[in-house]
Amino acid sequence: MFLQHLPSLPLCYYDKKNNKVIFKLISDKEVTSVKIMYGDPYRFDKISQCDDPSINKWQWVYEEAVLQEQYSSSDGVMWRCEITPPQTRRLKYAFAVTYKNGNRVYLSDNGISEYTDECIYTPYNHFHYPFIHEIDAPDVPAWVGETIWYQIFPERFYNGKPSISPKNAESWDNDKPLSRSFYGGDLYGIIEKLPYIKSLGITGIYMTPVFKSPTNHKYDTQDYYTVDEHFGDKETLKELVSKAHDLGIKVMLDAVFNHIGSKHEFWQDVLQHQEKSKYKDYFHVREFPVRAEYKDRDSLNYDTFAYAVNMPKWNTENPDARKYLIDAAVYWIKECDIDGWRLDVSDEVSFSFWRDFNAAIAEHKKDVYILGELWHDPAKWISGGYFDAVMNYPLGRTITNFFLGKQPDPDIFAKQLTGKLMKFSDLHTGVQFNLLDSHDTARLLTQANGDKLTVKNSFLFMMLMKGTPCIYYGTEIGMEGEHDPDCRRPMIWDEKKQDLNMLEFFKELIAIRKKYNKLVQNAKISYTRNKSLCCWTLAFENEQLQICYNSGTDEIKLDNQTLLLTDNNVIGMLPGKTTAVCLI
Amino acid sequence: MFLQHLPSLPLCYYDKKNNKVIFKLISDKEVTSVKIMYGDPYRFDKISQCDDPSINKWQWVYEEAVLQEQYSSSDGVMWRCEITPPQTRRLKYAFAVTYKNGNRVYLSDNGISEYTDECIYTPYNHFHYPFIHEIDAPDVPAWVGETIWYQIFPERFYNGKPSISPKNAESWDNDKPLSRSFYGGDLYGIIEKLPYIKSLGITGIYMTPVFKSPTNHKYDTQDYYTVDEHFGDKETLKELVSKAHDLGIKVMLDAVFNHIGSKHEFWQDVLQHQEKSKYKDYFHVREFPVRAEYKDRDSLNYDTFAYAVNMPKWNTENPDARKYLIDAAVYWIKECDIDGWRLDVSDEVSFSFWRDFNAAIAEHKKDVYILGELWHDPAKWISGGYFDAVMNYPLGRTITNFFLGKQPDPDIFAKQLTGKLMKFSDLHTGVQFNLLDSHDTARLLTQANGDKLTVKNSFLFMMLMKGTPCIYYGTEIGMEGEHDPDCRRPMIWDEKKQDLNMLEFFKELIAIRKKYNKLVQNAKISYTRNKSLCCWTLAFENEQLQICYNSGTDEIKLDNQTLLLTDNNVIGMLPGKTTAVCLI
Repeated sequence: MFLQHLPSLPLCYYDKKNNKVIFKLISDKEVTSVKIMYGDPYRFDKISQCDDPSINKWQWVYEEAVLQEQYSSSDGVMWRCEITPPQTRRLKYAFAVTYKNGNRVYLSDNGISEYTDECIYTPYNHFHYPFIHEIDAPDVPAWVGETIWYQIFPERFYNGKPSISPKNAESWDNDKPLSRSFYGGDLYGIIEKLPYIKSLGITGIYMTPVFKSPTNHKYDTQDYYTVDEHFGDKETLKELVSKAHDLGIKVMLDAVFNHIGSKHEFWQDVLQHQEKSKYKDYFHVREFPVRAEYKDRDSLNYDTFAYAVNMPKWNTENPDARKYLIDAAVYWIKECDIDGWRLDVSDEVSFSFWRDFNAAIAEHKKDVYILGELWHDPAKWISGGYFDAVMNYPLGRTITNFFLGKQPDPDIFAKQLTGKLMKFSDLHTGVQFNLLDSHDTARLLTQANGDKLTVKNSFLFMMLMKGTPCIYYGTEIGMEGEHDPDCRRPMIWDEKKQDLNMLEFFKELIAIRKKYNKLVQNAKISYTRNKSLCCWTLAFENEQLQICYNSGTDEIKLDNQTLLLTDNNVIGMLPGKTTAVCLI
Repeated sequence: MFLQHLPSLPLCYYDKKNNKVIFKLISDKEVTSVKIMYGDPYRFDKISQCDDPSINKWQWVYEEAVLQEQYSSSDGVMWRCEITPPQTRRLKYAFAVTYKNGNRVYLSDNGISEYTDECIYTPYNHFHYPFIHEIDAPDVPAWVGETIWYQIFPERFYNGKPSISPKNAESWDNDKPLSRSFYGGDLYGIIEKLPYIKSLGITGIYMTPVFKSPTNHKYDTQDYYTVDEHFGDKETLKELVSKAHDLGIKVMLDAVFNHIGSKHEFWQDVLQHQEKSKYKDYFHVREFPVRAEYKDRDSLNYDTFAYAVNMPKWNTENPDARKYLIDAAVYWIKECDIDGWRLDVSDEVSFSFWRDFNAAIAEHKKDVYILGELWHDPAKWISGGYFDAVMNYPLGRTITNFFLGKQPDPDIFAKQLTGKLMKFSDLHTGVQFNLLDSHDTARLLTQANGDKLTVKNSFLFMMLMKGTPCIYYGTEIGMEGEHDPDCRRPMIWDEKKQDLNMLEFFKELIAIRKKYNKLVQNAKISYTRNKSLCCWTLAFENEQLQICYNSGTDEIKLDNQTLLLTDNNVIGMLPGKTTAVCLI
């Protein structure tokens, strides 16, 4: 008997935009129905309990609602309902859970026990939602759930102004970048290519860092207040954002607040003046003199990102350092009207810092998307309200592990998929930054040894899962690349070298996702399997989409109207190892 | 196979006072040993992987530690270890868990899988503690873990200055208080009785509200800045705290910040000026005119505590209201040097408010004890850092349910007991406010129908469990009382009417707890049962205490050196239904 509920995120929360309280419960497949009894904790009616009218008893006043299946896989169900809170905004509640064998149990704060009317009337052990405070309610920017992202590594996207390119820039045709290579991509190039980005159907751009730095990736910031001279300047960034906005495209920048670049004047001052530097407490220096070079890891005498000597770690608990960074985050919002901050190495920065960071940003612009880079369990950061979302590598890995054959069982895949969606509240799931590859991984096509079907299958699944999907530049035209630096090759603009079939596929896929976005984001998802045919049905209101994957090798006939196939084949037929999206 | 760990409170945290990271893991009884492998996430050594020295591989550098059993009951074990974090303050870690049948599994962020050396060398899936930030680390006041509390309902403790008593005060001998009765107890009386309190061994006093209010309980505050005129004044409170401090006794007050009293000038102003009142947004008024009386619950047109018309709910999101309350909390710390605030109906006030409240208090006095009144699962408030502790009714109920016979199985009791201790980190468990009864419950002796052994057994258990125990005034002399108002009878000072045997028992019990406080607070606890004899062994360093309960009716001979019996019986013999504490 498996039942799980907690009166907190992600299984219970207040959706303030819709004035609803959402309740979820996870059960095994033996459960046939779940009901919730809810009401004000203090509300009792006097009732006559027996034939003798002089004996009265107090009975809790409650309403009932029935939970619906939101996700089901082969061994579990996520049940869901939403209710309008009572006028008093206080709630107690408990669940009545009915099993296939007819048994009924009562699930409360005290665990599972036998169902009796008595246990409902005396809500002593019920779950408790003491008071609904809007100020405590989770919130995410509404626009994010409608956004299709495109990740750009600016140094490698397009050279729009060769006159500002680094002197040693490689030829754009050299597709073997080294760690220290420069190619001359810049913000002018991105501006020039906005129509291309728009033509894909993209509605949000995420750029890796654009501020002054000596490296091509710019994760070692030399000046947080200056756009890198090889990318453009503040006006260029302002123009980029403004033109993107005109095209209905949001812009997110990358905030590198875990560590500074060693060329930054603050760190240079520390190296020069050591203990006398006014910036000495901006960093975690373990002893003076600070050594800018070290023989072995243990003799490094200040904190860094990883063991990178050019990336000293910020001491964000120092009030002046904290203010400097938060001011920078606000500055680019005020100056250029950016829409989001992606936070590099976000989990190595304190919660305390992110709390102040969020408060400062909210003061200057509503609905800025706060996206943490986090590779592990993000529960604390999301449920704690620090970030709207994280780079959703766990969902991505679940998808690619399946299609790359690392975890080949479709039933397990289905279970893992809903497991990932269940990690967050619906509110948060809808804005998670879903991705399959990035500047920090090998490109998927390369991971798949060039098998394009794997890429298409994977992206089809990712694009039709809840969350806000992202495509890494060049994926749409079949670019390849091993791990960094190879995954950061210059974008291929020569149509003869582009995979135009892949490009067409991505355009169609994005169009489908946008057309059915409301369905995808709100869908109940059920999984069924009939021999090789594995189907995920997404249903919302009167619409249903089905994702059908043929796990076998023989072709299968499809009855439903096929919207998109991952293979160029006869519509209505699903070849082996191929996925289709159908409207049913 | 049951294994539970999460890289967050209560199962993992940084103990900043001792510079240790604590790891805990919960398992079933089939597990025989648990080992942790931990190290810096970025630290790898190049190793030669095979006979060909030209092929190298990177291997994660880690250390190992063995977990010890902290709690064990009949069906589970809590394992624990602490480690000194590496200089870089970053950690990845995983567990190797060995079973009775020789199987070994690897527990990581990715769940349970087969143990291989490979999975340790590549810490990709390991649990992650990204960076140890002191500012984020949980913290509690050190003094609380050494405190034995005494709860006083001031109106009923002692009348030290009859000249300020309410005119209609009852005779102190009238032991049938009504809801509206006054008796004349005051702060002068508490000052006068400090030597008595000290003689019990008490080191902390918690007083229910003392501020101006028309009721005897004063939970409807009329003025947050004035001590009630029938209790004394600010100087009296100052003297009380000062004299208590001289005797080594801390003082905690009761903060009623969920709701105001309707006689407070702010609410009176709202009633008088309605929409024009400058205080109208200090409350949650649903419509004007506010009705001070109502026919039925649904026509009450402002938020209140429960449905109490004399307790309008504060709108703590209003900045002025918020400031007024927080200033009051700080005021009494600055003026009278109080040591703690107990927060009434704390769970119906927003997290946002408590965050500001805590920050303001920390600025004015270190180590103020913040205790929330909370009757349900307090995880969010404790792990979120809002409160140091809660009124630990769940632990109290576990103990009294057993001794009152509501849950009579000792094995289940043992499991529930450790379950309650496991709810919190060790840091938090040590300061939870443990209690068996209070002004909000019937007195335990009355719940036990006058059976004193039940009271003694229950308190013995409660006093020897981790946490900071509290005794409700009069319990030590055998006072009885049904639910409010009966549980608030005037304290019996006439020795002839006191249960002096009970008094002696409490003095001894408190003395034992104080003598063995370090052992109790740090103990590993193991439970064994031999027929009727149920034993809980508490062990720390070289000391061991044993709590022995005879669940049968025949007397059992005890071999251990007996320190205290709950009944006046032959040392070394344990009568039926009786508990003993032994030093072994």
